[in-house]
Amino acid sequence: MVVGISSTTMITKQSIQDAHERIKPYIQNTPVLTSESLNEMAGCHLFFKCENFQKVGAFKARGAMNAALSLPKDQLQKGIATHSSGNHAQAIARAAKILGVKSYIVMPRTAPEIKKRSVRGYGGEIFECEPNLASRESTLAEVVKKTGATEIHPFNNYEVITGQATAAKELIEEISSLDFIVAPVGGGGLLSGTALAAKYFSPQTTVIAGEPAGSDDAYRSMQSGKIEEAQSNTIADGLLTKLGDKTFPIIQQNVKEIITVTDEEIIAAMRLIWERLKIIVETSCAVPFAAVLKDKTKFTGKRVGIILTGGNVDLEKVGKLFA
Amino acid sequence: MVVGISSTTMITKQSIQDAHERIKPYIQNTPVLTSESLNEMAGCHLFFKCENFQKVGAFKARGAMNAALSLPKDQLQKGIATHSSGNHAQAIARAAKILGVKSYIVMPRTAPEIKKRSVRGYGGEIFECEPNLASRESTLAEVVKKTGATEIHPFNNYEVITGQATAAKELIEEISSLDFIVAPVGGGGLLSGTALAAKYFSPQTTVIAGEPAGSDDAYRSMQSGKIEEAQSNTIADGLLTKLGDKTFPIIQQNVKEIITVTDEEIIAAMRLIWERLKIIVETSCAVPFAAVLKDKTKFTGKRVGIILTGGNVDLEKVGKLFA
Repeated sequence: MVVGISSTTMITKQSIQDAHERIKPYIQNTPVLTSESLNEMAGCHLFFKCENFQKVGAFKARGAMNAALSLPKDQLQKGIATHSSGNHAQAIARAAKILGVKSYIVMPRTAPEIKKRSVRGYGGEIFECEPNLASRESTLAEVVKKTGATEIHPFNNYEVITGQATAAKELIEEISSLDFIVAPVGGGGLLSGTALAAKYFSPQTTVIAGEPAGSDDAYRSMQSGKIEEAQSNTIADGLLTKLGDKTFPIIQQNVKEIITVTDEEIIAAMRLIWERLKIIVETSCAVPFAAVLKDKTKFTGKRVGIILTGGNVDLEKVGKLFA
Repeated sequence: MVVGISSTTMITKQSIQDAHERIKPYIQNTPVLTSESLNEMAGCHLFFKCENFQKVGAFKARGAMNAALSLPKDQLQKGIATHSSGNHAQAIARAAKILGVKSYIVMPRTAPEIKKRSVRGYGGEIFECEPNLASRESTLAEVVKKTGATEIHPFNNYEVITGQATAAKELIEEISSLDFIVAPVGGGGLLSGTALAAKYFSPQTTVIAGEPAGSDDAYRSMQSGKIEEAQSNTIADGLLTKLGDKTFPIIQQNVKEIITVTDEEIIAAMRLIWERLKIIVETSCAVPFAAVLKDKTKFTGKRVGIILTGGNVDLEKVGKLFA
């Protein structure tokens, strides 16, 4: 069974407020960090919303928790399921553990060990599949059929989008008068939530996305007016998915622009975040900051919020990136 | 000229309070992070005081700023100087920049490039020397003679010790009823300051030090009752110095125990901090947490503060440690 508010129902200001109250006991209000040296470098005032400090190490804890808490009790009792190679998997497993129900996670056999360990740590049951969308979907369909669990999609789900919107809502509540918020885009769950949060809670704030050039399907979708297929020629492995039919219309209407960045630019931005902010962020996470550094004149002198999405990295791989 | 309160004058509660007020405009009250998974692993309640988020990326900003602000105006005008391969160098250069005076930094030519860049970024003038204590001291003596600048020693200086004490003071003010505070020991500036802060502001708190087994001079000094020579057989390169005649007596009287840890234990602890807290810390910085993990029964069920001292790392080297 797929969960979702009817696609004709828009996400309202009230629904984001309700989601925030609903999930507050289970998530962190993450800190906002600043750096004088990064401000100088970028020529603007940067405010980094640190979702790498979020529960499970990523903003995904918000959407998963909101979706799980929104299920009717009897449905929830049968458990929740998803396919995810990453942070959403941990987020679903954690939500299930907190709510005392089972979770079933379909993961490609190539997924990082740290993420599998973490899912198991939350009591999630992992079903391995081949690393392609067809295998993920067919495996998940079997699992759902067998268990009666409810699928919670990583992004194409209104409750998930509403949950992700709470990150930008907190940022707006803490930092006044933001001219821009920049978020990364993969499937568009965070981006669409961010755009709606800005629309309702800070209408003067322009939302812009950063996207890897090696997987620029969202950029092309904005040009063509239809959902384009994704590629996977980028190191930013959290952003390889294409947009969904729920996220795309929200993004079309509420996101001003998508800036694409190369892998070299992503790694350079990630390195600056590690060195200057002293925090661990994922490659995907550095994409919005890379976008700001690439298109500096757009942001000169402005107040720019950046959503740092997650901090789950395989440290073995890091040395190679910085070598 | 060497600055110092007369060695017969003890550091008082009031002098730490005064130092804190003096430096507050120039330093961060750094956050205290916690992690459920690390608590479970260690079997106690851990409170990490994140001085890696401090200005210049380390607690050294506190002591340097306090020492510089404590100088008479006419003396300060001639500038400040030190020899340091690391964070104290940046801290002195930053203090000088803020106060509008010159800084002269003697650094071994082998010091990490990131630290040299940072010193220059604060307008500090670097004098390179050979990587040994004799060369450092003779080069510094020349610089001081030529410029009339005041030497501010990295740790064997009462104003520096008093400044470092403010980190533990903040931790005690934020987290109530700590049973232990664990800090690393190199020259003993942070450790002696931490011990005095606990003595004055939280007398029921026991202060323990972590020290690399490959440079266990402080451990041996506590046994023998005199300052022992340091070795340098450890990856924790911020902790290679021996104690000073100002830090040792304070440590003798106020530190209960020194726990030594191997490089393997240090790297494992550092990895846990990176992975679970999502922050960048130096090898030296992981030593106290390694000590807690090594001697678990001592801390079982207790409230344990840990001073995370700094986050300035050469990222190129990190991959090798985690490989």
